[in-house]
Amino acid sequence: RINGDRLWDSLMEMAKIGPGIAGGNNRQTLTDADAEGRKLFKAWCDDAGLTMGVDQMGTMFMTRAGTDPDALPVYIGSHLDTQPTGGKYDGVLGVLSGLEVVRTLNDLGIRTKHPIVVTNWTNEEGARFAPAMLASGVFAGIHDLDYAYARKDPDGKTFGDELKRIGWVGEEEVGARKMHAYFEYHIEQGPILEAENKQIGVVTHCQGLWWLEFTLTGREAHTGSTPMNMRVNAGLAMSRILEMVQDVAMAEQPGAVGGVGQMFFSPNSRNVLPGKVVFTVDIRTPSQEKLDRMRAKIEKQAAEICDKLGVGCSVEAVGHFDPITFDPVLVGRVREAAEKLGYSHMDLISGAGHDACWAAKVAPATMIMCPCVGGLSHNEAEEISKEWASAGADVLFHAVLETAEI
Amino acid sequence: RINGDRLWDSLMEMAKIGPGIAGGNNRQTLTDADAEGRKLFKAWCDDAGLTMGVDQMGTMFMTRAGTDPDALPVYIGSHLDTQPTGGKYDGVLGVLSGLEVVRTLNDLGIRTKHPIVVTNWTNEEGARFAPAMLASGVFAGIHDLDYAYARKDPDGKTFGDELKRIGWVGEEEVGARKMHAYFEYHIEQGPILEAENKQIGVVTHCQGLWWLEFTLTGREAHTGSTPMNMRVNAGLAMSRILEMVQDVAMAEQPGAVGGVGQMFFSPNSRNVLPGKVVFTVDIRTPSQEKLDRMRAKIEKQAAEICDKLGVGCSVEAVGHFDPITFDPVLVGRVREAAEKLGYSHMDLISGAGHDACWAAKVAPATMIMCPCVGGLSHNEAEEISKEWASAGADVLFHAVLETAEI
Ligand SMILES: NC(=O)NCCC(=O)O
Ligand SMILES: NC(=O)NCCC(=O)O
Repeated sequence: RINGDRLWDSLMEMAKIGPGIAGGNNRQTLTDADAEGRKLFKAWCDDAGLTMGVDQMGTMFMTRAGTDPDALPVYIGSHLDTQPTGGKYDGVLGVLSGLEVVRTLNDLGIRTKHPIVVTNWTNEEGARFAPAMLASGVFAGIHDLDYAYARKDPDGKTFGDELKRIGWVGEEEVGARKMHAYFEYHIEQGPILEAENKQIGVVTHCQGLWWLEFTLTGREAHTGSTPMNMRVNAGLAMSRILEMVQDVAMAEQPGAVGGVGQMFFSPNSRNVLPGKVVFTVDIRTPSQEKLDRMRAKIEKQAAEICDKLGVGCSVEAVGHFDPITFDPVLVGRVREAAEKLGYSHMDLISGAGHDACWAAKVAPATMIMCPCVGGLSHNEAEEISKEWASAGADVLFHAVLETAEI
Repeated sequence: RINGDRLWDSLMEMAKIGPGIAGGNNRQTLTDADAEGRKLFKAWCDDAGLTMGVDQMGTMFMTRAGTDPDALPVYIGSHLDTQPTGGKYDGVLGVLSGLEVVRTLNDLGIRTKHPIVVTNWTNEEGARFAPAMLASGVFAGIHDLDYAYARKDPDGKTFGDELKRIGWVGEEEVGARKMHAYFEYHIEQGPILEAENKQIGVVTHCQGLWWLEFTLTGREAHTGSTPMNMRVNAGLAMSRILEMVQDVAMAEQPGAVGGVGQMFFSPNSRNVLPGKVVFTVDIRTPSQEKLDRMRAKIEKQAAEICDKLGVGCSVEAVGHFDPITFDPVLVGRVREAAEKLGYSHMDLISGAGHDACWAAKVAPATMIMCPCVGGLSHNEAEEISKEWASAGADVLFHAVLETAEI
């Protein structure tokens, strides 16, 4: 078994970097706080005898050597970046549990045939730079490096410039590494494990996603002196699209979601009808057929809504992945580890996207999940117990050991 | 007749200060650009022989002495501040036409019995600090000075601090001045004069307004892993309220408007359902009965919408005035002046709020309007012709002269 207290202490220590305003974290990618978090993680890895590689996306690969020089490494990855008002565990649990696996192996004097690489992927959250899982996406050949470098945050700063600014542009070509297997341990971020009273989620799939960024063009005009029938009201069109997205998601129940988290009005003045409204629709479902249908419905109906109001409507897909099926052999190993360790478990479909989704494109990959209180995540109040954290890390340890071989 | 070329040149000169991004202006109140605009206006007033008084709200009162030491002044006022993406004429036309009236009196060597005071009210637009017409509202005793000083812009800066920063805190007690009469000349900001092919709007009334700032409290949660039935979706509640406001305004046609210009999502991240959505509903109508009914309907129905979704809903009135009736004697003088000068004219209800609305609380007041292209205002593309500008300034000149007496 891993050392649950040590894991928890490290989680609490990391949470001191980039504190939020309500007990959680604001350690967004490529900020000074991100750089500080990376530094602390590196120091811990140095102490554990790991050697660092950094790629051109700033992803940190911390290697524990194996006994067979020809054996490909087993990767354990997740992310240290957070949402602007994020929790202490989302991503961090996976990275620090990877470190805890290594620390436990060190304690026990166990050497594995395959090297083990604990990985901190850059910009998993996608909060500052869309899309999410950006570095793992470049790693898997989904995005070009140039595309990634050109991503902009809401202030117009680019990913490339900010990566340079915090001093984490590595030498390694992105995606040059080959993986024997990839494991990711993460909090569920949903309500199922807690409701079903299970300690471990054996993640078999991840639902697919579209992020559709709408730019609606209305006519800036005075809210008081512009008669109703002369308005080209982009705000009204937006409100109809939000309701329509809700309807489209409800029509595909169970197993589909749709909503909007980001919204910009321009010029954003109380007495000016907006000339421009920009917002991103987030739709997800594990069914490829539903995902395609939802996107098509939304784009069609949004165009109709806007046409009727004379509002201009353009849509850019700023994030996308199709539903993912994880590697059955690795999934089996996770299930067996939970079984062997006596932890209650159930199969689960991941509701959120993860770097494992892109890793799965280039290697056998899977995930392990633990419950979180009330299913709450992307909220500073995100919470888990030390026991939940440890149980998943134990399962990770055994599944990795099985895969890395003694 | 006034000098239309000189008036136009001054308008174009002022428009160079705080240029916008699309041919208009961004000279928001209490910015450096506002300070620069004030400086230019003061220089012109100095040249015209006016003496300056400044009150504690930073309002500039530029006086041309009268011949009777006991006669109260006739005021000509409007504002030099603009929207973030505002036009070159909204407000500016009124202030600079006041100056043009004085310049013309100087040219003709005419002295009036009553002094004439050209006034630049601070923060008419209300774009940076709600409510609009803030300084004239304090002048008329509608707001306290402390209330005004505490108003905050979206960055959290207060009106009081910013007024001090640009160096325009005056000595005069706000509202201490007594007015013989108040005139304001403004572009219509609506489509009626142009559609009816009239040169002059004789403004008899101004419609009433409520600015209702809604704060909706949802639950921040992951857009992907939070099932539809577990969402406390403040964004969805907002969309329903916007549609409802539209319905409420449409039910009161003709003669009522409702819409939303300002919107903030928090934390405003694509994959986080908003924990907080803040927006301001702007409703207006010339009918007191309709205005009361619209506000009541909106507050009631918004509460119902939010209740149904479990979303918290609080409403703060951040701007308000009841419908205004302007002084019949002054209105008659404007109509007669237009008639005498041979300008086509019609009676008009102001769709926008103006400092004249507050001045009307403490003195006989009225307004004159000229058309604007397509009824467009609060848009950098706002446009008028030199002929339109001159015609209204001519009417202003004659109505003021009649009132200030030779
Ligand atoms: N796990 C997680 O929250 N990832 C962010 C990407 C997503 O929105 O699913
Ligand atoms: N005239 C004008 O645009 N004033 C701003 C206040 C309002 O919104 O009516």
